[in-house]
Amino acid sequence: MSLADTAEAGVQRMPALPSLLAALTGPAGPAQRRALAKAITLLESSRADHRLLADALLDAVLPRSGAALRVGISGVPGVGKSTFVESLGLMLLERGHRVAVLAVDPSSQLSGGSILGDKTRMERLSVREEAFIRPSPAGHTLGGVAEKTREALLVCEAAGHDIVLVETVGVGQSETAVAGMTDCFVLMQLPNAGDELQAIKRGVMELADLVVINKADLDRDAATRAQAQITGSLRIAGQQGRGDPLRLAERWTPLVMPVSALDGQGLADFWAAVQRFAAQQQRTGAHAERRRRQNEAWMDERITAGLMQRFQAAAAVRAELPALRAAVLDGRMVASVAARRALDLYAAAGPPAAASPPP
Amino acid sequence: MSLADTAEAGVQRMPALPSLLAALTGPAGPAQRRALAKAITLLESSRADHRLLADALLDAVLPRSGAALRVGISGVPGVGKSTFVESLGLMLLERGHRVAVLAVDPSSQLSGGSILGDKTRMERLSVREEAFIRPSPAGHTLGGVAEKTREALLVCEAAGHDIVLVETVGVGQSETAVAGMTDCFVLMQLPNAGDELQAIKRGVMELADLVVINKADLDRDAATRAQAQITGSLRIAGQQGRGDPLRLAERWTPLVMPVSALDGQGLADFWAAVQRFAAQQQRTGAHAERRRRQNEAWMDERITAGLMQRFQAAAAVRAELPALRAAVLDGRMVASVAARRALDLYAAAGPPAAASPPP
Repeated sequence: MSLADTAEAGVQRMPALPSLLAALTGPAGPAQRRALAKAITLLESSRADHRLLADALLDAVLPRSGAALRVGISGVPGVGKSTFVESLGLMLLERGHRVAVLAVDPSSQLSGGSILGDKTRMERLSVREEAFIRPSPAGHTLGGVAEKTREALLVCEAAGHDIVLVETVGVGQSETAVAGMTDCFVLMQLPNAGDELQAIKRGVMELADLVVINKADLDRDAATRAQAQITGSLRIAGQQGRGDPLRLAERWTPLVMPVSALDGQGLADFWAAVQRFAAQQQRTGAHAERRRRQNEAWMDERITAGLMQRFQAAAAVRAELPALRAAVLDGRMVASVAARRALDLYAAAGPPAAASPPP
Repeated sequence: MSLADTAEAGVQRMPALPSLLAALTGPAGPAQRRALAKAITLLESSRADHRLLADALLDAVLPRSGAALRVGISGVPGVGKSTFVESLGLMLLERGHRVAVLAVDPSSQLSGGSILGDKTRMERLSVREEAFIRPSPAGHTLGGVAEKTREALLVCEAAGHDIVLVETVGVGQSETAVAGMTDCFVLMQLPNAGDELQAIKRGVMELADLVVINKADLDRDAATRAQAQITGSLRIAGQQGRGDPLRLAERWTPLVMPVSALDGQGLADFWAAVQRFAAQQQRTGAHAERRRRQNEAWMDERITAGLMQRFQAAAAVRAELPALRAAVLDGRMVASVAARRALDLYAAAGPPAAASPPP
């Protein structure tokens, strides 16, 4: 049974909005956890009537959202993300926080969910009532996956989770998407940085506010070398980033720190660094500005995706675009001419497809 | 008189397409230069009837285009781009090449043209008949400026120019646009690399196939230090780029070389490196693949820009979008909800605006 099927089935049992909201914003406990799960299932539903209900839900929870610290965590498969997130989550629970763990995993639509899909990978955290863990939504494009996760994040905050960890793998532009919805973006590396760096897509290193070198206990020397190499890379990236006004506001030089998620070594130092970063962002106003830019970019991205989805859904476009694209790729047509012909076909075809959820 | 005015005026005197094509693809000389200038003026015109003529022109020249080596040259103001381009151009003329120099300068719509706008900055090259120099088109968005330059590039090739140099400044995403329309992207730096690097926007260094340190004669030691620092930066960027299949195909480690454009020192070595790069790209098939990707990305970018232009031109959107955006920025509305409302308004408003040239 796919996650999408689960979503539809779950929504069949959807309570009315007022009772859902009451449970969601009510006292912590099993009832709230069920309401939170149901609310996110509603957000993930693609049915038009569910979409209207979901928008009403989002309007209602928005005033209660925004207070959490949003931390994005990325790294290639095998770097130990789940172990790190679970150890970090458990430490934060001990400190009295309520932690939500979400995922942006565009590969899940293919694999059926690789991140958090297997709850047993975080069994110690998933059984704790103060924690809420949600796998990546399936059956969407990266943009759609990111949208659902962003919306789920707001609902988690409304339910009183004061720390939200968003996990992602290095698939497509998923790191950019997660850096675009979190207050602090953490990149996980392995001690053999030389090899690892090769697996980092261009520009991802420059997104990092913090870099953790996991499994540092396996090879202290390698971890130290990795720390030096990555610090150098980040310094250059930081200098390049000076052109970015947001970076100017931040005046933050990304830290690189060794951790060992398995035995929890370095976790406390890591979180202290996250808190130092968050405090500095608050003080300089970069935190608020970053969220403003994230929201505007999110809105524009969804508008663009929606326009493109309607365009591609138009019969005239579906009929002609493949031939136009082939002609461009074969060098038989100038790209801008092909684009204008496709746009004219679309305009001539009349009104765009009726509103439907963007991909 | 603005460039846009010039364009309109120029098109008034536009000959019929057949005679324009005949002159364009005819023998080199004053007549061909005039035809080339007129053809590009036609491409830059925003009149709908001119647009149809321009598309017919592009269809006609496409089979005669593509043979030139396209070299992008970027660097901050003051790095000496124009002097470098002129010295390089003159050297290439001596070697029997026919050189076209185009520009992508989105700031020109504000400043009235900062690159090549003042022909006297390249007076030695501009008087040569084997050379063709064209300032950046004005009155367009970056996407529009890039589109006109891409189209002009094809016409220059059809007119027999076998080397096209595309100059740009570090404005907006102009480097990305120029890297996206050339076979080899060159980044110019000054010897005081530490300061210069700060002026480089994130990711631009990773676009470079070659880096030249200009005015190296002013401070040899600084130039050597800059060369080492930039080489290190590029190595890391290159490693990060390994995730990029195109980079994999290239297997090219960007070179960093000192030049002195003023007295021509290092120019021959620079061009030898460009030729080495081009030969390697041809051999590995990366050259053809890069152009295929550039054309497909160009088509998709123009479709997206066209859809957005029609969306923003719709009355219902013009009336409501500002309020929706303000609500998102003030935290009164969830971005995805605002995007869906704007898209629904657009869909409800009926057919999109009649076809008009994308911005």
